[in-house]
Amino acid sequence: MKRICLLGATGSIGRQTIDIIKNNPGDFVLVGVTCGKNIEELNKILTEFPSIECYSIQDEENFVKVNSSKKGYCNNQGILKVIENSKPDLVVNALVGFVGFVPSVFTLENKIDLALANKETLVVGGEIIKSCLKKNKAHLYPIDSEHVALAKCLQGKKKKDIKRLILTASGGSFRNLTRDELKGVTVEEALKHPSWSMGNKITIDSATMMNKGFELIEAKYLFDFEIDNISILLHDESIIHSLVEFNDHSFLADIGPADMRIPISYALYGKNRHEGEYKSLDLENISSLHFRKFDVKRYPCVSYAYKAINIGGSLPCVLNASNEEAVYAFLNHQISFLEIEEIIEMMLSTHRVIDCPSVEDLVYVDSLTRKLVKEEIERRKQ
Amino acid sequence: MKRICLLGATGSIGRQTIDIIKNNPGDFVLVGVTCGKNIEELNKILTEFPSIECYSIQDEENFVKVNSSKKGYCNNQGILKVIENSKPDLVVNALVGFVGFVPSVFTLENKIDLALANKETLVVGGEIIKSCLKKNKAHLYPIDSEHVALAKCLQGKKKKDIKRLILTASGGSFRNLTRDELKGVTVEEALKHPSWSMGNKITIDSATMMNKGFELIEAKYLFDFEIDNISILLHDESIIHSLVEFNDHSFLADIGPADMRIPISYALYGKNRHEGEYKSLDLENISSLHFRKFDVKRYPCVSYAYKAINIGGSLPCVLNASNEEAVYAFLNHQISFLEIEEIIEMMLSTHRVIDCPSVEDLVYVDSLTRKLVKEEIERRKQ
Repeated sequence: MKRICLLGATGSIGRQTIDIIKNNPGDFVLVGVTCGKNIEELNKILTEFPSIECYSIQDEENFVKVNSSKKGYCNNQGILKVIENSKPDLVVNALVGFVGFVPSVFTLENKIDLALANKETLVVGGEIIKSCLKKNKAHLYPIDSEHVALAKCLQGKKKKDIKRLILTASGGSFRNLTRDELKGVTVEEALKHPSWSMGNKITIDSATMMNKGFELIEAKYLFDFEIDNISILLHDESIIHSLVEFNDHSFLADIGPADMRIPISYALYGKNRHEGEYKSLDLENISSLHFRKFDVKRYPCVSYAYKAINIGGSLPCVLNASNEEAVYAFLNHQISFLEIEEIIEMMLSTHRVIDCPSVEDLVYVDSLTRKLVKEEIERRKQ
Repeated sequence: MKRICLLGATGSIGRQTIDIIKNNPGDFVLVGVTCGKNIEELNKILTEFPSIECYSIQDEENFVKVNSSKKGYCNNQGILKVIENSKPDLVVNALVGFVGFVPSVFTLENKIDLALANKETLVVGGEIIKSCLKKNKAHLYPIDSEHVALAKCLQGKKKKDIKRLILTASGGSFRNLTRDELKGVTVEEALKHPSWSMGNKITIDSATMMNKGFELIEAKYLFDFEIDNISILLHDESIIHSLVEFNDHSFLADIGPADMRIPISYALYGKNRHEGEYKSLDLENISSLHFRKFDVKRYPCVSYAYKAINIGGSLPCVLNASNEEAVYAFLNHQISFLEIEEIIEMMLSTHRVIDCPSVEDLVYVDSLTRKLVKEEIERRKQ
């Protein structure tokens, strides 16, 4: 029986994680949850799982809306309190954004295994997480469909045989538009992802392809590969979740339905496959799979990710913070789709890089970058 | 330095095996070869590889054409002499037909590793080979692209996680014809395989899909799976060489160029990948992969294979012998394409099955079946 503490319980990954826990009561017990502002959903979870020992919400003023006698915490600090006090065997970090980084470090420092859906943890603090894992005996299990696919392809293989990792990319909601055609796109159009149903932030990151840039960085740290040995391949159907190319010119590909519960299960079961009640994939009915060359000029966010990770230090933190703020500004109709890229590029080129940043350095750089982005957006409004 | 004895050196697999040995002189030394009637090619091989210690040819009267002072043998017995006297570390069995069966048994009985391209070995004598492998400490390495693909997908995986093996099939030269349209097809049309360049026998087996029926049986023995957990999927491009479906509804697929030197290398290096000078596969340029449902009614030979293996005993031997004779009769313009199936079905339904046959039993059943097929063909001519 694995005690699970779920960070970001009301989001897309959070809800699917709960679904798996619910369907496998003999394997998991939910002992702690955190959420942002969705108190209605939190109340449902607290009612459904009497096993929950404590919870955390983002804003103190929302405590009045919570129908529970369990111990409650708030703010970013509350997330750490829930991890500490629920005494989990596994923390599932399904938080969105930089806010997920410190809880990841805290989890590993406390020698607790971490199932990671929060991309920013490795993007911003890959080196710190690497040394956390070395120092403490905790495990890190990726949840992303691409990284689970790579883990499945790499399992039992020799590193010397591997030429490169290949992340597949759907191309996002605007994959059939040219750069020129991107000028007038709306938020509503951007939120229509062709193959996955995900949260708003990641759906925009998928349209700009920053999501794939983040995944490149995550893959580097998860599998200890040089960034130059990780490629991107456009693949329309999101059926091949990623591939590994071997030195003998053959590939292994992980193929499956676009159902996040499969990779989440793999992480929850500690890199073990688990038969869930999911819809199987009928390859015969899919009838064809398509590939297209990935063009980094079409998706400059990926080149920003390459630049950020190659320079390193605090620059990936700037990449993430500027992206996060710019994406939310786009979602709030404050800037256009292409301004997301402009703002990220500007922040990257003006940042003075801190080498080997500490967690505190990164928290500072994150908040400074957000401030600068907000100022830039205000300037653009005038 | 691995000493290689190559059976069937002048055929398609034989020549490609020689290509690999030639390109990796630090890893392999060719010590024995056998061939059928192609003495011209044999002479070239004997000249190119002074390391060859002995050879064998099919017919005694061809000795006069061999330009070599090395020890030569002939007939089926000569194949065994070459295995015995060349003292190999690995026998590559690239013989075509039942003639390859006894040498496979002889190799394993002599505790020599066996790289197996000869399909008939496992089709006819799967149970005998299984007990040979149990008794002796020799290894069996498949050479078929499909089985190497499965081996690569299965490597490092837990058997309990696997739902089924899926053999991909191009569908052969007549894949776009209906059963009705098969009536008038010619030998020349049948020999035009859409994706692989292979010997004549296997190209016809691919058109009737008996080849896939054989591969089902081989997969059963190679990976110890029930025949009902092995499926066939039509896949036009022959780029996905086979797949494994896991219980968590995801698949692993082996993908690569249609170049037999890749699976041959994997076998020669004892299930290790080796970087050869082959053309890489550019997935972006392939642009799409297609799948179609396999319909056993369209390809009755596969149902004959299921029937033969389900009943077992000497019946798979009848399946093979009748197929072999019928295919050669078709290639010699003695019968029509659809008569291949008719003859096999007739032989299967009239055979009195011997349970747990010995090698001698199988040699007898093989020769009896061939005689019966020849008589049937004569009868049809009248």
